[in-house]
Amino acid sequence: MMSSRWSVAAPGRRRGPELERAILDAALEQLGTVGWNALTMEGVASGARTGKAALYRRWPSKADLVAEALRTRLPPLGQIQDLGSIREDLYALCVRMRDVMHSRAGQALRAVLHECDHSHAERFHGLIWSGLHEPAHRLIGELVHRGIDRGDVRSDATGPFLVDVVPALMMYRTKVCGSEWSDGDIAEMIDGVMVPLLRV
Amino acid sequence: MMSSRWSVAAPGRRRGPELERAILDAALEQLGTVGWNALTMEGVASGARTGKAALYRRWPSKADLVAEALRTRLPPLGQIQDLGSIREDLYALCVRMRDVMHSRAGQALRAVLHECDHSHAERFHGLIWSGLHEPAHRLIGELVHRGIDRGDVRSDATGPFLVDVVPALMMYRTKVCGSEWSDGDIAEMIDGVMVPLLRV
Repeated sequence: MMSSRWSVAAPGRRRGPELERAILDAALEQLGTVGWNALTMEGVASGARTGKAALYRRWPSKADLVAEALRTRLPPLGQIQDLGSIREDLYALCVRMRDVMHSRAGQALRAVLHECDHSHAERFHGLIWSGLHEPAHRLIGELVHRGIDRGDVRSDATGPFLVDVVPALMMYRTKVCGSEWSDGDIAEMIDGVMVPLLRV
Repeated sequence: MMSSRWSVAAPGRRRGPELERAILDAALEQLGTVGWNALTMEGVASGARTGKAALYRRWPSKADLVAEALRTRLPPLGQIQDLGSIREDLYALCVRMRDVMHSRAGQALRAVLHECDHSHAERFHGLIWSGLHEPAHRLIGELVHRGIDRGDVRSDATGPFLVDVVPALMMYRTKVCGSEWSDGDIAEMIDGVMVPLLRV
């Protein structure tokens, strides 16, 4: 198989990082078209115009490759600039969270979770935690502190459960009601729950 | 197999409802000992000292039998008597919700969900919805109205998201942090989120 790998990989003569990007892009592409169960190392290698050995040198298994593709392609939550009120700050954060879940990698991640078995699910749930919920908790904590300093959040808005409310409601309605979180849903949640919960 | 079924079933000479209860109890017992994947109609029949035909006459498949056993054995949420404040009323409700999930049927339901494949998971998730979340939404709505009438809940505490907060937080911390919801966790959630969210 060495000869076919080199002959296929030869045209672009891609080096390490470039080839790696091509493989991870091909993995995400395959996930979107054939799904988790039908995805194969051969299929991804073919999509990236390389050989299976190039994949196995970097990722010992399909699960490792897919986890890396999802982890590196999930858009970061980033920072939320000060929009002048806790309402607008939290709205911007929720829109960002929804957009991460609706991104190509976010949708692929949800599809994988729906398809894979429990031994893999724990690992992929971990990606949602480290890529979305953990940064969301940190950001919400920052927005609340900013609101306290600005004066539109009560100074005793503390405690471990406050930063859970937004991710918990987003997960709950997504799972239980299949909500896609329209802008209107987000505004209704902020105005109906977060603003009364935090106001002075 | 007819002879062995009758010979085994004969001692108690159990009629319809009594035999049905014995089968459903045996199904829950089997779930607790061998789990969803290893549970068989034969094993349940043997545990109930009857024959497989008695099971198949009532439930066409193992999934139907298990769903019925879980549905009928999950303790009902019931009503929450007026404890004098929204804090105490909601605390009692959350303790009740936790106790339903920690009941024998509740634990079996969670174990089944962890073990079964996605084609069955939807059905068993439906049992949590209809047996726990839906009645919880209804009860929380009643407690909030009672609080408005009593005067310790603001009169504009309305909107579709308010009744989601408790079930969402309970699901979130159970799934994401593996929380078992001690009495202290429940009190901290009520005091940190629900009381400030609802107070006048």
